[in-house]
This record gives sequence, C-alpha cells and structure tokens, in this order.
Amino acid sequence: MVHVTLWQKGMVITMTFTIISVGRLKEAYFADAAAEYVKRIGGFSQCKKLTLIDVKESKNDGEITERIPPSSYVFALCIEGKQLTSRDFSAKLEQAFTSEKKGICFIIGGSEGLSEGVKSIADMRLSMSEMTFPHRLAKIMLLEQLYRALSIQNNRSYHK
Amino acid sequence: MVHVTLWQKGMVITMTFTIISVGRLKEAYFADAAAEYVKRIGGFSQCKKLTLIDVKESKNDGEITERIPPSSYVFALCIEGKQLTSRDFSAKLEQAFTSEKKGICFIIGGSEGLSEGVKSIADMRLSMSEMTFPHRLAKIMLLEQLYRALSIQNNRSYHK
Repeated sequence: MVHVTLWQKGMVITMTFTIISVGRLKEAYFADAAAEYVKRIGGFSQCKKLTLIDVKESKNDGEITERIPPSSYVFALCIEGKQLTSRDFSAKLEQAFTSEKKGICFIIGGSEGLSEGVKSIADMRLSMSEMTFPHRLAKIMLLEQLYRALSIQNNRSYHK
Repeated sequence: MVHVTLWQKGMVITMTFTIISVGRLKEAYFADAAAEYVKRIGGFSQCKKLTLIDVKESKNDGEITERIPPSSYVFALCIEGKQLTSRDFSAKLEQAFTSEKKGICFIIGGSEGLSEGVKSIADMRLSMSEMTFPHRLAKIMLLEQLYRALSIQNNRSYHK
C-alpha cells in the first residue's frame, strides 16, 4: 500500500517532540551528534519544538512520568517492543499527528531498562533492534529515525 | 540454554576483524565515536587487529570483494538479513573463532545498499534493525555490538 503523507495532501500539522532518557550523554561525540540531529529536525515545519530531557539513573519512575508533557502520544523504547520499518514509523507518527494528541514523547531507559510501570503508561512499546544498545547510542538512533521520518513526510531524498 | 563462552573454558582465540564500508564518515562525531570503539575493542585479547576500510560509493563490487582478507567469515549487513540478539551475535562470532577461519569481516553498504553479488559471497546476512540507518551510523552500531560481544565473551559487566 502506498502511504500518502500529510505533506502530499497539503496538510502540515505541528507537534512538540520530547525525548526523555535515563542517564546522560557523557561522550562529546554523542552529544555533538545529538545536537546536529536536533538542529536538523528543528528545520522541519512539523516540528514545533524538540526537547531532550535527561533523567538521573538513580531516580524512580515518578521522575520520568512527571516529565511527559500532557496530551502526548508516548513511545516506550524497549527491546521486546514492536519493530517498525522507517516508513511505518513515519506513518505511525502521522497517525499521532492526526489524533487529538499535542505532542509525541519517547522514553529511553538506562542500563536497567524501563520499569513495567513506565512501559504500561506508553501508547506503544517500540523496539529498534533485537540487539541491546546503550541508551546514549539508542538516543542517536532514535533522533536519526525521527529525522528520517520527517524527511519521508516531506518527500525529501534523504530517506532512500 | 546457557552458552559457555570460550573464555570461560579457558580458551582465547585471536582473530583479525575488518569492517569494509561504502562511503566515508564525514562527520567528526561519528569518526570520533568509531575511534573510541576501535581503541576499546583493540584492548580485548581476542582482537589481533581491527581494520576499518572505507570504499568509495561509486566503485563497483570488485573494490569491496578485493578488500576482504583471505579466509574470513563474512557478514553482509542488510535490512533483510537475520537479526540476532547481542548474546547470539557474540555466540555466532565464537563459532567463527572455532572454525578454520582466520578473521571476521563485516561489509556495510552505502545509500544504495549492497549488491546481490556482494551479499551472495557472505557467510551470513545480518540485520541490526527493520529500520533503515545510514552507513555511518550503522558502522557505530556495529562497532558497539562488536565491543559488546567481546565484553560478553570476557564476562565483563558492560553488556548487562
């Protein structure tokens, strides 16, 4: 099935994007990569605002759940979640765009993963791989997929 | 099934590792991340040598296949390949260690992916995700998994 993007329909809906991750990007190269993707994603008309929030590893679930913006479609990243192709991920974001939600929020766990409590409040459990990646690299992978998804929606050549 | 690593059996087999990728790491942050992983991987006794080879995007298959060291177990990275968990990937590498092979070689395609010709000479087609990642990020993801696999084999705590 050919997915007709909102962009192709002449509609642009703006959303806020939030990525909450447990643990910090200590390495300069991961911080630099994240900053570059944030800049690029911010250039898309669909992106009203992109916020990266780091939560300390030692904190409890409350710290995470409190930071989720109200009326967000929430993705919990976990290895047992569902995998999507980049195109299907892009289409999934568009579904959220056309819902009553005002934003999209992603949660990435630390070295212990996310608790059942956090996962249970998510609208979707998303897996990027069967392989285990550290949160700092998972964040870059997610930013890349977000950039790719918005490129697909805007019919840019990047995503080929 | 609990996999008993070669390290736990008191055996350490050294191998050469080669990553051939189509296209270059232009971004400083990806180059820095790769350099850090190369340093860390080089610290493991299993790693005799780790070589990263960049092949120009425009070149043909011959350029890739000529660079594969003789007697290598070859992984072709492609989206339609088989996904493995990090532990199974680690065990898969150990299988190659105990074969007659002298090295392990990974091939990462450029924006057009790898040709059927290159994929057909691989011992295994490996996929890291259903999502499409650019070769430069795929290289970092692969280096991370290689580091993780060797950590698992050496019973280091990193891989939890």
